[in-house]
Amino acid sequence: MRPLILVTNDDGIKAGGLESLVKVLKTIGDVVIVAPNESYSGMSHAITVKTPLYAKLVKEKEGLKLYKVNGTPVDCVKLAINVLLERKPDLLVSGINHGTNSSISLHYSGTVGAAREGALNQVPAIGFSLLNYSYGADFSEAARIAEHVVRSVLNDKLPAGTFLNVNIPDAHPVKGAKIARQSKGKWIEEFVEREDPRGRKYYWLTGHFENMEPEAKDTDEYYLAKGYAAIVPCHLDATNFNLLPYLKEQNYEL
Amino acid sequence: MRPLILVTNDDGIKAGGLESLVKVLKTIGDVVIVAPNESYSGMSHAITVKTPLYAKLVKEKEGLKLYKVNGTPVDCVKLAINVLLERKPDLLVSGINHGTNSSISLHYSGTVGAAREGALNQVPAIGFSLLNYSYGADFSEAARIAEHVVRSVLNDKLPAGTFLNVNIPDAHPVKGAKIARQSKGKWIEEFVEREDPRGRKYYWLTGHFENMEPEAKDTDEYYLAKGYAAIVPCHLDATNFNLLPYLKEQNYEL
Repeated sequence: MRPLILVTNDDGIKAGGLESLVKVLKTIGDVVIVAPNESYSGMSHAITVKTPLYAKLVKEKEGLKLYKVNGTPVDCVKLAINVLLERKPDLLVSGINHGTNSSISLHYSGTVGAAREGALNQVPAIGFSLLNYSYGADFSEAARIAEHVVRSVLNDKLPAGTFLNVNIPDAHPVKGAKIARQSKGKWIEEFVEREDPRGRKYYWLTGHFENMEPEAKDTDEYYLAKGYAAIVPCHLDATNFNLLPYLKEQNYEL
Repeated sequence: MRPLILVTNDDGIKAGGLESLVKVLKTIGDVVIVAPNESYSGMSHAITVKTPLYAKLVKEKEGLKLYKVNGTPVDCVKLAINVLLERKPDLLVSGINHGTNSSISLHYSGTVGAAREGALNQVPAIGFSLLNYSYGADFSEAARIAEHVVRSVLNDKLPAGTFLNVNIPDAHPVKGAKIARQSKGKWIEEFVEREDPRGRKYYWLTGHFENMEPEAKDTDEYYLAKGYAAIVPCHLDATNFNLLPYLKEQNYEL
């Protein structure tokens, strides 16, 4: 039986990154896309609790189904697994995102949130992102890397309690793909401050990323700068186990 | 100098949990509240990128300032640290949330997202949640526990790269507070399926939590069931370090 692959993203059903990804996934398995009807950037692991969700079947032909949902990437995964799919998928693939989700950017990422949600449902899961924000980005190399990682995950299944955050440089060709750890970094925020037409001050988030470990040679940022895709295995367990003994010795317990 | 304490939540500026928390924090330091103007439940680590943010100073008196923001809890933290506060806060406290954020619920939680954002900005940070969803919940015991944990964190500063997710049982009295690890659990989702007035099918997320480790005696769920608050140190680094050697040996790299 061909594997059943659930696909979502956070750029919406019309994104070029989704189209490029699906093109290679169709050669590997049956594909069901359940994705937001529009862009849901920066939605992290958010879910919709206040309003109802609609899922519309937009397309169905030869081993491919496409649903659009008026919700977040995580909503799409939940709705797919619990309502829309006839059986549990063998793999969840999220992306290919337009723009980086390396280092700490993964915390804000709906692409990564969707992959985490897959893993929370015991589905092997991968989030893919290309380091190019533009609508017309060339995803051909990213799709080649994605195909390799997808085949590896279908073969290995991935150990429980993890999912992969894969970032791909905007290089042609991409040199390869490396297992990496998440780089420590920070966003230097600059809020644009303006006045609206009614004279009220408003703020608009912007900023730039700073790698706090420019010397490290095992991070996602390192490999991306060298022209390699970076594969970071992420954990589902939020516990900082190293700190448990220390905190027990301090005065935190009561 | 009295410590500067930044406070936010995801239930909005009018929530009883926020009021109870601020009451005890005022006895410890100068308090600036920067919180959503309404409830932002389930927003995780989401940020607002498509629309501008407004911050309105609602109240200012004797060592207390209250701003309301039309954004997520993480937006509030970013805006506070980068624009509204005169200096970096000594502590960020998020909550007290109306409802649990134990086990995997922390992934969906705006309360926890705000605490994580504080830690990403090198500010010691704590998220507090009470296991009672109702608007009129009694936060007196939760506030007592929160005061103890806040004083402990101000004293110890917390090691870098971590923040605390503290859940408090709806018990009177709460027996104490214990350092714990996050319990493995899952949400059994049940989407309510109905027809809207125009005959279109819609889905509404609901469900119940299932503890996958009911026998474990070191988890947040264990201590909460016994009547203790559970203090889980969470990491900022998403890397699943244990898996790096394994994945390098498999066929993932290219």
